[in-house]
Formats: sequence, structure tokens, C-alpha cells
Amino acid sequence: PPDVLVLPKVESADDVAWLSGQLERHWRRPPSGPNSAVPLILMIESAAALLAMPQILDSAMSASRQRGLLHPVGCVFGSDDFCASVGVERSRDGLETRHARAQFALAARSRRLLAIDMVEIDIKDVEHLKRQCNEGRAMGFTGKQRLCEEFERHSSAGAGAFVFDGQMIDMPTVRQAQSLLAQHRALLALDEAALGGGAGGGKPA
Amino acid sequence: PPDVLVLPKVESADDVAWLSGQLERHWRRPPSGPNSAVPLILMIESAAALLAMPQILDSAMSASRQRGLLHPVGCVFGSDDFCASVGVERSRDGLETRHARAQFALAARSRRLLAIDMVEIDIKDVEHLKRQCNEGRAMGFTGKQRLCEEFERHSSAGAGAFVFDGQMIDMPTVRQAQSLLAQHRALLALDEAALGGGAGGGKPA
Amino acid sequence: PPDVLVLPKVESADDVAWLSGQLERHWRRPPSGPNSAVPLILMIESAAALLAMPQILDSAMSASRQRGLLHPVGCVFGSDDFCASVGVERSRDGLETRHARAQFALAARSRRLLAIDMVEIDIKDVEHLKRQCNEGRAMGFTGKQRLCEEFERHSSAGAGAFVFDGQMIDMPTVRQAQSLLAQHRALLALDEAALGGGAGGGKPA
Repeated sequence: PPDVLVLPKVESADDVAWLSGQLERHWRRPPSGPNSAVPLILMIESAAALLAMPQILDSAMSASRQRGLLHPVGCVFGSDDFCASVGVERSRDGLETRHARAQFALAARSRRLLAIDMVEIDIKDVEHLKRQCNEGRAMGFTGKQRLCEEFERHSSAGAGAFVFDGQMIDMPTVRQAQSLLAQHRALLALDEAALGGGAGGGKPA
Repeated sequence: PPDVLVLPKVESADDVAWLSGQLERHWRRPPSGPNSAVPLILMIESAAALLAMPQILDSAMSASRQRGLLHPVGCVFGSDDFCASVGVERSRDGLETRHARAQFALAARSRRLLAIDMVEIDIKDVEHLKRQCNEGRAMGFTGKQRLCEEFERHSSAGAGAFVFDGQMIDMPTVRQAQSLLAQHRALLALDEAALGGGAGGGKPA
Repeated sequence: PPDVLVLPKVESADDVAWLSGQLERHWRRPPSGPNSAVPLILMIESAAALLAMPQILDSAMSASRQRGLLHPVGCVFGSDDFCASVGVERSRDGLETRHARAQFALAARSRRLLAIDMVEIDIKDVEHLKRQCNEGRAMGFTGKQRLCEEFERHSSAGAGAFVFDGQMIDMPTVRQAQSLLAQHRALLALDEAALGGGAGGGKPA
């Protein structure tokens, strides 16, 4: 079974039931035994989906208890499709999604799921990125999508450069983002080694 | 049949069902045939109505599919009655309705209906009007009520001057608003003529 | 019967039904006759409870009509537990609860109940307190919790000093708050005496 399943454009409780039914019918080696259910992430990408979130999440959790194939762990706010569904333009400070994101975070957290905030592509302006992250954190978000994930989605679909949020994203931009992420992971690994290595968790020399 | 029906003070899904039932019983020459249903606009004017919007709209659309008399096209946010229902005072910048209007726009747009923002009476301060319009637009509103509609409602009820938003609205104010609207319509007509007349859609000399 | 019952940590409509059932079974001298039902205040203290408020309140009002033991009069927003349920930290200006409180006030007011805003402990900074009160008022709140109520809760549980909102609350702070409240009540009594004593409701010399 895969490490995680991401269900895009969930619109109603029926969509989750449909996925569970498909898996039950077609999965040759379904996960079995305790704690073997595949983690499921739901993408909420329209006003209708946002308003139906409590029903969608309850349906997903109920299907999880009954069938044991999938286990909902988090929700992602898909800002571009969301804005298109409402008919608003995305702006840099994201005022147009503030109400919706606050409502999204409440709904995800009310069911103790991870709440993943919208993608931020402007990773060069660190102060801006920090403001956006802090705003999401105060709303209850537990994580945030980054440019690299977008790229992986596009490159796995065979595309090179792609347009995101109205900006052309080319390879140098992607490489910069990947390098930032690699640094971040290296720092995390150092921290873990330091913490795991005892001696008060001090920084390695 | 009338061009459009406006149902004020909708409070629950029952109200829409009631209207449909009344029309079915009393309409002598009901609309018949495809696309003949009368466009229906729902006025949402209380906290209870706002919270019940998804159910109200689903009920209206379901009645539309079943009976074919009415066809929901949009919702209007009635700010004065809304503020009275919650017990808040209307202010110039409208902070007290911001959350409710954002929620209203999401609900209307989630069912692909027009979302008409609250009335703005201060049409002299253009910068203020622009801010209010932009704020509504970012929330997903597709239109905004103006003073003239208020006047038409009052004058059709036989009143002359009237109080709106705590301000006395007299005939000069109404005439100014009507003149502005007439100019706007004239400009729209010019634009359409220019666009329809070919030659690149340039402005007529 | 008690003057009022406060039900903390209401999570779903079942909780209110449970309380009604318990009272019906164990209340030796239940209130009887018209208008004898005990006023009930519901504390909403999690994201799940906030999203379920319409159902919780409808259930409480329905139980009230059927059994006549309890009569819902208001809701309290429990900010500390709410923030813990969402996983956000409380800040001084309360940005992290703004969306939730606006939604809470709408839900309470939609059922014509009192909406009691979160506790403010910083009673020394009057300007800050005023801003917080005005913000709540614009949202539809009809009242606000103060430090003294917190103290009464803790002292009735046998505690002396206690931690609230990450601050140690000692007896001098409590006494200052109680003195402020006593002054407020004295002023209210003076006002009432002046209004009741006729002569235009002027201030007593």
C-alpha cells in the first residue's frame, strides 16, 4: 500500500464514500491488521467543500472505522481552485481567503486532523513568508504547502516549467526552493543528532 | 409572470417551500416550458437565516427543479435588519458585518448564485465607496445594492423622504444617486455599442 | 432549585440531553409551574462545540420546551480551552480567537440567547479593556467575563492564587478587580435610584 493517499477536489461526503468503495473493490492487497490503514489527506478546494467540511470529515472518519482501509490524517486548503470557485482573485496578502482559511482550520482541528495552509510561492521575501506562516498558525493551521510540492506534482505529470499563482515558475526557482528545503532538513537532522546524542542537547561543534 | 421575484426576510428552508406552494396554488398563468421559471432573489436578513443559508438555498434549488416555477439566481445581504437581529449598530466602515458578509458570500457562491452586498448610501465619498466595493469583491460578492433601490422600495410604498442607516434621505440625495446611475447606464450603453459595432471595440469619438 | 446552572465543556447536542435526563431522574424537588425552569448557561470551549452550536442550542431549547426543567438563556465563550482544542496560543489582542468569537456570537444571537465574551484579565489597562469590549460588542456579544468570576471558580474549589492566561493571579490582583466591580455596582445602584426617583433622572448631588 502507498505511504499516503491524497484525494483532490473533495466536494461532498459522497466523494470519500466513493473512494472507499473503489479501494474495497479493486485493492488486490488491501492493508490488514491493526494500524495498517493508509493515511488519507483530503484537499478542500471550493466554497461548497468548505461549508460541507464537518459532514465530509465525519463521513471519512466513519468509513475509516468501518472498513479500516484509509485513516484520515489531514486536510489541505487548495487556494487557487478555491478562489476560482468563489470568483475572487488571489492577492499577495491573501485577504480574500482569510475568512475561508479560518473556517477551514476550525473544521479540520475540530476533528483533530492536520490543517495544511495554502501554498506560498514567494519564498524569497522571508518577512512576507513569516507573516503568512504566523497568520496561519494563529488560525490553527499545523503546516503549510510550499513551492516544491507543486513542482513535484507538475514534474510527475511530465511538465517542466509551470505557471503557479499567475507566475511562471522555472527551474532556477524550483532549485532554490529545493536547496532551501534540503538545508532545512539538514538542520533538522543535526538537531535530532544533537538531541539524541545526549550531553544536554547542545549544538555539535 | 414578473421579471423577477424578491423574497424578503427568508428565515428557513420552510419559507421558500411556502412561497412555492402559494404560487402553485394561486398563479393563474404559471410559467411553463423550458427556461420559463421566474428568477428568484432571496433576502438574508438575520443571523438565523445566515446560519441556515446552505439549507435554505438547497431547498430553493430543489423546489425549482421539482416545480419549475421559480429559479433561484441570487441572494441579497440585508444589513439593517441583520444588525438589528444580532443587536449591533451599523458603523461607517461596517466592521460589525464583516464576518457575516464573508460567510454570506461563501454560502451564495457555493451554490453558484449571485451574491449582492449590503446597501451603501454614502455615494458622495467615492474613495469610501471604492473601499467598500473592493472589500465585498474580495469576499466573493458579485454586486452591491445602492441607494436608488431603497428609494424605489419606499416610494412604491407611498413614502417620500425616508430614514436609512440612521440618515434622512431626501429627494435631492435620491436625484443625485439616480443621475449617477443614469450616467453609469449611459456609459455601459456606449461601451456595448462600441463593442458591438466592431472596429476593435475602440471608444466612439 | 438553583438560581442558574452553568454547563461547562458542552461538546454536542447529546450533552444537553444527558443533563436534562439526569435532572429529571435525580431532582427531588424539580421546578414546576410556568416560568419556574432554571436558567441554563452553556459553555462552548472547543472547535467541535463551536461548529455544532446551532444543533446544540436547538437541542437545548427543544429539551426546555418538552421537560420544563431548564431554560437556556446564554452561552459563554471559553477561550482558554478553545485555544487548547485548536492548538493556538492566546495573545493579548486575541487575533487567534476573532473568527471563532464572531461565529460564536452569530450562533448565540441567532437563537436570541445572551452571548458572553471571553475573560479579560488585564483590567489595569483601561484602553485595552475598552478596545476588547468594543470589538466584542460589534460582533454581537452582550456581555463579557471578568477576572472575578475566574477567582470565584478557583476559590470555591479551595485554591488561593491561581494561574490564568499564563499569568499568576494573586490576592491583591483579585481584590483590585473585586473593588472595581463593587464600584461599578454602586454606580449602577446610584443610577437606578436616580432614574427611579423621577425628577428627570438627573444625577444625585
